[in-house]
Amino acid sequence: MKYDKGKGLYENWIVAEDDFDPAFLGKSEVTAAQGNGYMGMRSTTEETYVGEVRNTFIAGTFNKFEENEVTELPNCADLIQMDIELNGYKLDLTKGKIEGYTKALNLRTGELTREVTWHLPTGERFFLMFRRFISLNDKNLMAQSVEIKPLDATATAKIASGINGQVTNSGVQHFLEGDKRLYDGRVLQMVQTTTQSKIHLVLSTVHNFYMDELHFDASALIRMERRKIMLDFNVEIPKDKTLRIEKISNIYCSRELENEGVDLEVLKKRSSKHIKSVSEKGYEKLYQESAVSWDEKIWQKYDIIIDCPQGFDQLALRFAIYHLTIMTPAHDKRMSIGAKGLTGEGYKGHTFWDTEIFILPFFIYTDPQIARSLLEYRYLSLPGAHKKAKENGFKGAMFPWESAWLEDGEVTPEWGAADIVTGMPTKIWSGFIEQHITSDVSYAVWHYYQMTNDEDYMEKYGYELFMDTALFWSSRLEWSEEEKVYYINDVVGPDEYKEHVNNNAFVNYMAHWTLKNAMVYYELIKIKKPEVFNRLNNKLELNQAYKQWVVQIDKIYLPCPDSNLIVPQDDTYLTKESIDLSKYKNQEQVGSIFKDYNLERVNELQVSKQADVLLLLYLLEDLFDDHVKKANWAYYEPRTLHDSSLSLATHCIFASKLNEIEWAYELFLKTAQIDLGPDKMSSNHGIHAASLGGLWQCVVNGFGGIRVADGILKIEPNLPRSWKKISFPMYFKGDRLLITIDRISVRVDKLTQMNRSIDIKIYHETISLVDTVAVSYN
Amino acid sequence: MKYDKGKGLYENWIVAEDDFDPAFLGKSEVTAAQGNGYMGMRSTTEETYVGEVRNTFIAGTFNKFEENEVTELPNCADLIQMDIELNGYKLDLTKGKIEGYTKALNLRTGELTREVTWHLPTGERFFLMFRRFISLNDKNLMAQSVEIKPLDATATAKIASGINGQVTNSGVQHFLEGDKRLYDGRVLQMVQTTTQSKIHLVLSTVHNFYMDELHFDASALIRMERRKIMLDFNVEIPKDKTLRIEKISNIYCSRELENEGVDLEVLKKRSSKHIKSVSEKGYEKLYQESAVSWDEKIWQKYDIIIDCPQGFDQLALRFAIYHLTIMTPAHDKRMSIGAKGLTGEGYKGHTFWDTEIFILPFFIYTDPQIARSLLEYRYLSLPGAHKKAKENGFKGAMFPWESAWLEDGEVTPEWGAADIVTGMPTKIWSGFIEQHITSDVSYAVWHYYQMTNDEDYMEKYGYELFMDTALFWSSRLEWSEEEKVYYINDVVGPDEYKEHVNNNAFVNYMAHWTLKNAMVYYELIKIKKPEVFNRLNNKLELNQAYKQWVVQIDKIYLPCPDSNLIVPQDDTYLTKESIDLSKYKNQEQVGSIFKDYNLERVNELQVSKQADVLLLLYLLEDLFDDHVKKANWAYYEPRTLHDSSLSLATHCIFASKLNEIEWAYELFLKTAQIDLGPDKMSSNHGIHAASLGGLWQCVVNGFGGIRVADGILKIEPNLPRSWKKISFPMYFKGDRLLITIDRISVRVDKLTQMNRSIDIKIYHETISLVDTVAVSYN
Repeated sequence: MKYDKGKGLYENWIVAEDDFDPAFLGKSEVTAAQGNGYMGMRSTTEETYVGEVRNTFIAGTFNKFEENEVTELPNCADLIQMDIELNGYKLDLTKGKIEGYTKALNLRTGELTREVTWHLPTGERFFLMFRRFISLNDKNLMAQSVEIKPLDATATAKIASGINGQVTNSGVQHFLEGDKRLYDGRVLQMVQTTTQSKIHLVLSTVHNFYMDELHFDASALIRMERRKIMLDFNVEIPKDKTLRIEKISNIYCSRELENEGVDLEVLKKRSSKHIKSVSEKGYEKLYQESAVSWDEKIWQKYDIIIDCPQGFDQLALRFAIYHLTIMTPAHDKRMSIGAKGLTGEGYKGHTFWDTEIFILPFFIYTDPQIARSLLEYRYLSLPGAHKKAKENGFKGAMFPWESAWLEDGEVTPEWGAADIVTGMPTKIWSGFIEQHITSDVSYAVWHYYQMTNDEDYMEKYGYELFMDTALFWSSRLEWSEEEKVYYINDVVGPDEYKEHVNNNAFVNYMAHWTLKNAMVYYELIKIKKPEVFNRLNNKLELNQAYKQWVVQIDKIYLPCPDSNLIVPQDDTYLTKESIDLSKYKNQEQVGSIFKDYNLERVNELQVSKQADVLLLLYLLEDLFDDHVKKANWAYYEPRTLHDSSLSLATHCIFASKLNEIEWAYELFLKTAQIDLGPDKMSSNHGIHAASLGGLWQCVVNGFGGIRVADGILKIEPNLPRSWKKISFPMYFKGDRLLITIDRISVRVDKLTQMNRSIDIKIYHETISLVDTVAVSYN
Repeated sequence: MKYDKGKGLYENWIVAEDDFDPAFLGKSEVTAAQGNGYMGMRSTTEETYVGEVRNTFIAGTFNKFEENEVTELPNCADLIQMDIELNGYKLDLTKGKIEGYTKALNLRTGELTREVTWHLPTGERFFLMFRRFISLNDKNLMAQSVEIKPLDATATAKIASGINGQVTNSGVQHFLEGDKRLYDGRVLQMVQTTTQSKIHLVLSTVHNFYMDELHFDASALIRMERRKIMLDFNVEIPKDKTLRIEKISNIYCSRELENEGVDLEVLKKRSSKHIKSVSEKGYEKLYQESAVSWDEKIWQKYDIIIDCPQGFDQLALRFAIYHLTIMTPAHDKRMSIGAKGLTGEGYKGHTFWDTEIFILPFFIYTDPQIARSLLEYRYLSLPGAHKKAKENGFKGAMFPWESAWLEDGEVTPEWGAADIVTGMPTKIWSGFIEQHITSDVSYAVWHYYQMTNDEDYMEKYGYELFMDTALFWSSRLEWSEEEKVYYINDVVGPDEYKEHVNNNAFVNYMAHWTLKNAMVYYELIKIKKPEVFNRLNNKLELNQAYKQWVVQIDKIYLPCPDSNLIVPQDDTYLTKESIDLSKYKNQEQVGSIFKDYNLERVNELQVSKQADVLLLLYLLEDLFDDHVKKANWAYYEPRTLHDSSLSLATHCIFASKLNEIEWAYELFLKTAQIDLGPDKMSSNHGIHAASLGGLWQCVVNGFGGIRVADGILKIEPNLPRSWKKISFPMYFKGDRLLITIDRISVRVDKLTQMNRSIDIKIYHETISLVDTVAVSYN
C-alpha cells in the first residue's frame, strides 16, 4: 500500500495501491471500503477474482439463519460486480499485462478510483478507469462510473451488470427469493427479505451509457437467475473513444421506515422515485454533492492537523476518522457500531465494549450528538440486558457481551475455532462470563456526561443506566462468609487468555466504580432532581436497592498493589508460569502462540492477550499513583501480546503518560499498522473499528494529554519527538474548542459563543478560560 | 474435448481435454462428473477458479429453503478442494506455464485423472498428477490421490484441505451449522443437517502422506471456520521425489438408514468405522475394487459394441451408459433420476417424464431390476400424485410435472426467466397444466410389463398405477355439450412453446390410451386375478369408475390427420403463422428464438420446441400408417427447433424408421453432441440425462429397430451407412439376449437358460426362438 500518492490538495489524503496482488484481496477490499453508516461495502473489484469477498451491509438488518447460529448482519445483494469482456477476453488483471495500475481511496471526498492500462493477452491495449462512491449526502445512494477506451483499434465490449443476490455470509443465505423486475426498459429492481427478522430491502439500479460523454441507449438483453437479475450489453467502441457506463444504485430498507409503519410497496415506490431522480443527476453531480458533505460534515468538523515530517501519521489519523465515519450508523439510535464496522463478516456486525471504551471518546469529543445516539442505543437495548440478567439469575441490566438488535440480549456465539489439542471447537465463554461490559457502558455514560453536561440525556436515559447497571453488580457480588468480603468469581476480564478467573482487577474495580457512581448520583438526584428520582425509584425500587449498596460498597474485594506495587490481574495470575514471549510478541500475525499452545495451556501462563490491568490504571487513573503505574507498566507490558486490536492504543496512551514517548510513538505506529501495515491478512474479516478509535485516542488523550476530571478539562501534552504541532477540535460541555499544541505551548481557541467560562487545567496551571488562552508549558 | 485419447484397452473409453480454458469450466465439470447413483459430483478441480461450480449431491436429500422456493437437492459440503501452494505460489494453471495438460475421464473404470507439468511464474517446474473416483463398489466412498514432484529443486508445498460446507445452491444454504471435529489427530468429521427436511449427512475424511510411496506423518494445523474444517499441511519435497497425498472420504446419509430407524450418533459411528477401514486399504486398492465393479456390474452387462470407423460413436454411447449409471439411485426405490442427474443444480434434482419416456427404456432392456425400482418410485409417490389431483379438483393420481420426495406432490417452480418484453419473470405453467406426465407414467409401466412380464410388480404396483392414472383422466375430461365429445383444454403438450392449448394431440391420444389400457386390464384382472382386482376395487371403487370409462372412452376427441395427413398438434397450431426458422434451428445454443420473441409471441407461431406429434407417432406407432408418419415428419421436422434435449433422439428414431438413414445418423450425432459437442456452455447446469437415454434409444430402437408388440419382440434394423455391426445385450421377458446386427443379418443369442420360447419377429418374419437364431434380412 502506498501513502504518498496524494499531491497538493490531497496530500496525506490518499490510500493507494500501485500493484495488484490477487493473493491479498481482503486487505485492499477492507482498507478501501466505503460507506456512510447506513450502508457499508468492501471495495471488491468490478471483475471477479478467486478469494474476493463481496460484502454490502445495511446497518441494523440483523437476521438469524437458524437456532444454533447467532443473529448477524446479512450480506445483501451485490450491485458492484460487472463482468467485462473486451474483444472476447474477460477482464482479468492477472492475465495479459497491466501498466500504470492505481487503486486509490480519497479519504477527503470518499471516492474510490481504479485505473489501469490493460493489455489483452493478444496485445491490444485498453485504458480503464473505475470510480465509485457511497453518498454521504444521500444515505441510500451509491454510484459507479466505468470508462473503457481502446487504444489500438475499435473493440467490442460485453458488459454483464445488475443485481446479484447469490452472495452469502460465508455460505449462509439470509434472504428469501424476492421479486425481481426490469421496468421502463432500464431500471432493475430486486426485493430482498430476511428469512427470520423479515426486514425488506429494495435495491434499484440503472445504467447510463456515454460515448465520449455523449449519452446513447445501449440495448440490453435481460437475464434472470435465482436471486439475480442482470443486463447483458454489447457495445462497439471506436479506437480512442471512451465508453463510459454510469451505474447508479440505491438500497432502501424497511428498518428506516419502521417508525412510519410503511409497507413494502411504499418502499419500492420510494426506491423507484429515488432512482429516477438520481439517474437524471448523473455520477459527477451526485459525487460532488457527496464530496461537499464529506467536507462540511466531516473534515471541517473532525480533522486533526499533525505537523510532522511523516505524512503517514497524518494520513493514518484521517484514515481512522474516515472509517469511524463510514462505520457509524449515526442516523438511527437503535443501532451501534460493529466491531468490524460495515466492512466484513467478522464478529457478525455485533457491538462490543469496543464502542463504549475505544470508539465513543472520539464522538464525545468530536460530535457529541453521535455519541449520544450510541448511548441511546444502550438504553434502548435494556430489554436485552434485562433478559440476559434474568436468564443468568441476576437483577438489573446485564449487558450482552455481543449486542445486536435491541431485544436480542446476548448474541455471542457459543463455539469458536478449533482447539489444536482436542480437535474440537473451543467454547467461547465471553457471552457467559465476560461481564465487565456492564461497567463499561455505565462508565461511558459517565464519560459522556462529564464532557458534555447533557442533562437531557441523563434525565431521560443516563441516570437510569447508572442505576440499572448497579443493580446488576449488586446482585452479582458473591459474599464470602469466610473472608467477609464480596468476590467476583469465575469471570473473563479484558485479557481473554484468562478464562474462569476470580477477582480480575479490572472487573472488580469497575464493578465497584459502577456501584459507587450509582450511589453518588442516587444521592444527588434524590435531592436535586426529585421527579427523575421518583420515576426511577418507582421503576427500579432504588431506595431498597440503595440500602444494600451501602452495605456492599466497602466490602467489595479490590486487589491492591502487592509489595512490588503490582496490581494482580486476578487471584492466580501472578502465581502462574512466565515464559519467554519474544517469539510471539512481534509476529506479523496475532495469535501465533496458539500454534504452540491451546487456550487451556495459555490460561496457565503469565501471558495477556491485551491491556487489562493497564487499562484499569488508565480508565480509573486517579485511583493509582505514578509509582504503581510505572511498576505495572514494567510488569505487564512484556507479558502482553497485543493479540487484540484493543490493546496497543491503551499502552500508547499509558506510555505517553509515563513519558516513555519513543515507546508511545512506536505503539502509535503499530496501532496505525493494524490495518495499514504490512500484514496482508490482518484486515480480511473487516476493519479494526476499536483500534481506529484507539488511534484517535493516542493522539488526543495520549500525545495531547487531554483528560477531564471534576468538571475540569486537563491538558498535559507530550508530543512525539518528530511532531512539531498538533491541532484538533473538541467539544467540552457544549462548547467547541480548537486545541493547538506545539513543542512549547498550548493554545485553546473557542469556536462557539460561550455561555460560561470553562475551567481548563494546563500542565498544573489552572486558568479560567474566557476567550482564547495560550500557555507555554515547557 | 478429445475423444481419441484412449489407446489399447481404453480405446473409445476416454473423454479427455488437453487444454485448460477457465472460461468454460462447466462443460468440463459436468461431462467428467463422477458418481454412483448414491452420490454425484462435478469434476471441479482441486484448485479454485472464478466461475467454477463445486457440486456434490446425495440422491434423495431434498430440502426446501423457504416457502416461496421449491424443494431441491442440496449441494453438500465439498471434499475435493485443496489449496496447493508451491514455493509460495498458489497453484493456478492460468498463471505461469502449463505443459502436457490432460484431464481424462476413464469411462471403463470411473477414474478421473489430471496431469500437468506446471511452471511457476519463476520458472521452477512441478509435475502434478491428480486422480479420483467415487466408488461403485462402496456407495459412501470417494477418494483422491494427488502427486507433486518438483523437477528442478527441492520445494515447499503448503496444502490446505478438509471439508468445506460453505458451498451453496447458487447462494442458497440448505444446511444447519453442524458438529465439526478432528479426532485421532487425523480424521476430520462434519455433520450437516438440512434446514427443513432434517436429513443428516456425516462426512469424514482422512489424509495420508507418502514420499516416493513411503508413508510419513505430515504434521498439520487445524483450522475451523463456519461450516468448514481444514488442515494446513506444510511439506518439503526434495527434487525429483514425489509427494503423494491420499485423501479418502465418505458421506453417510440418514436417508439410507431411515428404515433402520438409527440416529445421528450411529451414523457418525458408521462413518468413523468406515473411514478407518478404507484409509487402511488406501487409494489404489479401493480404486481397483471400484473398477472391478464397473466391469462386472456395468460393462459386462450393458456395453454395446458398434463396429464403425468413427470411434466417437462408440465412445458417445459409452459416455451415455456411464452417465446413466452414475445418475441413477438404483439403491433406493424411493428415489428417481433428476433431469440433470447428480451433476448440477439445473432442475433442482427433480424427476420429469424424462425418466419414464427417455431413460427408462435403457433400464427396461438392460437392467430390468433398476427399471422396476424407478417404477416403484412412482408407486411410492402416489401420495403426492393424489395430493396434486385433490388440489386441482380431480380424482385419482395426477402425477406432478416435477417430482421430488414421495409426498411432495408438485414441485415445479412457479416463476422462471425474465420476459424480454415485460421485464418480469415468466410464469412457468408446466406444474399446472403440463399433465401428460400422468399418461407417461402409465405408459412406462405398460412398456416395462410388455418387456418383462413381471407379474409380481404388476400385482403389487402396476395394475394400481394403470387404474389410478385412468381415474385422473376420467375426471379431467371436459364434456362439450355442443360437440358431444370430451375435450382436454388448456394444457401444455410436449412442445412447451405452446401454452394453454386445447386438445394437444399427444395429450389427448395418450389420455385415451391410458383410459383404454386401464379398461383392458380391468377386464383382464377381474377375471384372471380376482384377488388383485378385489383389493383395487375396494381401494379405488373401480366398478363404479369403469361404468364411466365405458361411456367416455369413445367420446374422447382424438385429432385426426387432416386432408394433408397432418395430425394437428392442437386446435390452433395449424392456423398460426409460419416463419423462417433457419436462423434459430442450427444455433450452437438452444433458445435463440427468445432473443427476438418472448414466449407470448412464440406461442403464436408454428414453431415447436421439441418432438410433439412425432413423439406420439412413435410411442403409439401402431395407430398411424406410414403415409401419415411421412407427412407429419415432413411437416413438423422443419418446424421443430430441438430446443429441448428430449427432441433429437425421437426424431432420430423416427427418421430411421422412415428410412431417412443419413438424416437419422445426423440426428444421432447431434444428440451425442448435446453434452459432448462444441457448445461450451450447454452442460453448465448439469448433464442432459434424457438425451443420454435417448442416445441409447437411437441405437437400439432406432438403428436396431427393436420394438415389442403383443408379446412379440420385433427387430427391424436400419444401420447407418458407416456402421458395419452393432451388438447389444437386452432382457426380454426375463431372459437375457445378445442381439447382433450387421448389414445383412440379425443374430440373437440367448445368454440365459430359457424357460420357454419367445416370439421374435425379424423383418416381417416370425420365428420361435429356442436357442440362437440368425436371419438374413437384406
